[in-house]
Amino acid sequence: MGLVVQKYGGSSVADAEGIKRVAKRVVEAKKNGNQVVVVVSAMGDTTDELIDLAQEVSPIPSGREFDMLLTAGERISMALLAMAIKNLGHEAQSFTGSQAGVITDSVHNKARIIDVTPGRIQTSVDEGNIAIVAGFQGVSQDKKDITTLGRGGSDTTAVALAAALNADVCEIYTDVDGVFTADPRVVKKARKIDWISFEDMLELASSGSKVLLHRCVEYARRYNIPIHVRSSFSGLKGTWVSNEPQGDQPMEQAIISGVAHDTSEAKVTVVGVPDKPGEAARIFRAIADSEVNIDMVVQNVSAASTGLTDISFTLPKAEGRKAVAALEKTRAAVGFDSLRYDDQIAKISLVGAGMKTNPGVTATFFEALSNAGVNIELISTSEIRISVVTRADDVNESVRAVHTAFGLDTDSDEAVVYGGTGR
Amino acid sequence: MGLVVQKYGGSSVADAEGIKRVAKRVVEAKKNGNQVVVVVSAMGDTTDELIDLAQEVSPIPSGREFDMLLTAGERISMALLAMAIKNLGHEAQSFTGSQAGVITDSVHNKARIIDVTPGRIQTSVDEGNIAIVAGFQGVSQDKKDITTLGRGGSDTTAVALAAALNADVCEIYTDVDGVFTADPRVVKKARKIDWISFEDMLELASSGSKVLLHRCVEYARRYNIPIHVRSSFSGLKGTWVSNEPQGDQPMEQAIISGVAHDTSEAKVTVVGVPDKPGEAARIFRAIADSEVNIDMVVQNVSAASTGLTDISFTLPKAEGRKAVAALEKTRAAVGFDSLRYDDQIAKISLVGAGMKTNPGVTATFFEALSNAGVNIELISTSEIRISVVTRADDVNESVRAVHTAFGLDTDSDEAVVYGGTGR
Repeated sequence: MGLVVQKYGGSSVADAEGIKRVAKRVVEAKKNGNQVVVVVSAMGDTTDELIDLAQEVSPIPSGREFDMLLTAGERISMALLAMAIKNLGHEAQSFTGSQAGVITDSVHNKARIIDVTPGRIQTSVDEGNIAIVAGFQGVSQDKKDITTLGRGGSDTTAVALAAALNADVCEIYTDVDGVFTADPRVVKKARKIDWISFEDMLELASSGSKVLLHRCVEYARRYNIPIHVRSSFSGLKGTWVSNEPQGDQPMEQAIISGVAHDTSEAKVTVVGVPDKPGEAARIFRAIADSEVNIDMVVQNVSAASTGLTDISFTLPKAEGRKAVAALEKTRAAVGFDSLRYDDQIAKISLVGAGMKTNPGVTATFFEALSNAGVNIELISTSEIRISVVTRADDVNESVRAVHTAFGLDTDSDEAVVYGGTGR
Repeated sequence: MGLVVQKYGGSSVADAEGIKRVAKRVVEAKKNGNQVVVVVSAMGDTTDELIDLAQEVSPIPSGREFDMLLTAGERISMALLAMAIKNLGHEAQSFTGSQAGVITDSVHNKARIIDVTPGRIQTSVDEGNIAIVAGFQGVSQDKKDITTLGRGGSDTTAVALAAALNADVCEIYTDVDGVFTADPRVVKKARKIDWISFEDMLELASSGSKVLLHRCVEYARRYNIPIHVRSSFSGLKGTWVSNEPQGDQPMEQAIISGVAHDTSEAKVTVVGVPDKPGEAARIFRAIADSEVNIDMVVQNVSAASTGLTDISFTLPKAEGRKAVAALEKTRAAVGFDSLRYDDQIAKISLVGAGMKTNPGVTATFFEALSNAGVNIELISTSEIRISVVTRADDVNESVRAVHTAFGLDTDSDEAVVYGGTGR
């Protein structure tokens, strides 16, 4: 058949039973005639336990040593998984990130993959073994130190290995059945998406969907590696993420892929900014210099009477204090009136490449919110996404209203279709 | 000053408190002007917990994967120790066995060190860091697979690194104050030995003393690395093991270094062996072919009337069944009468280079046992050791009697001295 890279998260290998269940699934893929490479995370709570240990020893653990510590987690799960597979009568070999050729930069705790040289993995599968690779970890190019890739790193390991091995598919096994049209905990009638394009998936990921991280999807798009997100518990078909639909996947993409929401952000408003060239640049240079990442940025026309305007932006709540401090320092130079900080907001985003060619999407979106009695505070759009900021208290109702309005509910006959082009 | 290699066992780093205590001691050595390399074992029960996990997953874990699993243990302790040291304001870097250049053969679970190429460790200490190295582990020369050195492997790592780095001393920190003239749990009046020669230490180690393993002492003797065995809890001076006494160590070695005992062996007697050339060779070839290691071997003159003799040997109890099975197969060829197997024995050994030049040692030894009412079943000697086999029930009384007879008790004024030469 081909070469399959499978990735199993910590919840799939949380205990001996989980590891045995995963081993069976891996062996199944092998029996179907595939070469199989498995990327595995640390067991369940192992990483948290190691972090606790580090805290007991040192309040500010060194990055290098923290990485050395955390990488013990995958070492345990991968060795156990290899044992469990061998116990089923198939050959398996486990490899650390370093042995698998995952080369990174030297930024400990959130290293980026520079190169993957999977010679040992290729040899191992060519010899008939199932290769088990530690996710989340690599080795730095210059110092040969052990590094970790940061949050969601195992998904990135899987996609990067799939690219380097020229795999046919990268299967990401998780504890949900796939990517849904909205968070099923909020919208009971959310549908599992059978296929979604890389572009729409990227927008969903950056709008609050947590199934796949932006970084992993971006990597897959760059190397054109189809991702199959599916449950390690149910065995059902999940969601394919790729350039084009494949096989029995629906040939046509829905107009709207889904509704995402995000309550992890805060809103900062700079009030009374003189409306002249260079003021916005000064403000965002100050933010950038304090190493704060911002998300939405909105500036409206200034009031003619005052020549002053307001600039708003959103950012992760955790970085709010840093951003406000940086801005306060520039107040004299920029000459703005005041700052407002608001962390009781939610962002609701509608994502779908179809909105490019279907007018009325924006109107339907806003009408749905209005009918639900939800006030819109900020609006920001990309080619295939519309995002609004509302009160945090309104988030669940907003998502449900929009989901229903676009015919995404499971009991709708089909999605709403618009005629014409443009939105 | 010089370069010091320190080794801390699992009981010394059993929890966060232990790790912090060890960190202080390491920093003290650094403050005294030394370059410091630390070899560390896995925390307390970590290894046992990992073994339990492996058992849950697979009844017969693969050697390669078992080593991958177990080496997670030192990875955790070494990273935590490095963090704790940095927390005290000193630079520290941890290294895996592979990174430290510990090259082994490919025999998983009990690999032997072939070479040590400590380039990264040397660079690290030259840059002013304290280098922390994972004990017990290495990387195989041919396949680049992770290996472990088997029981007591961390001591061997420490001595091997000390040799490769041309260290001034290898300090082995443990949970006892040093090497004693007898097991202090058996002999309350046992004395701590200040200095002992490699030769005497080797004999003690192979006679049942558990403080240092034979393999580690042998390595130290070959490369002439002085070992200082001491407690990580008390801070007292311990026992120096070296070719010659150094500094304020006693210039003259005691006649008798100590009394060791071992209750882990069983005795096999081959009864009624025809007393002709080649019979003993057949018997021990059969044993060797079954990969059983034997210890003492005793054959006495045959009875003139029958032309038959008995051959006895001792071996680890765990290998008794295998040896007996191997011998039964040769019964027809050798033509012996019967086999006797006895696992209720103890071996008591008196060790000391002084016995070479002091007559009467053997006589005193046997008289002490006789006065204690202990029957001697087998006798075997080397140049600097006398061993006897007794009933297992007699072991404690035997050791105490011999210890007293040779003036080794702490309340004795001095050791018994013999005149003349030869024993």
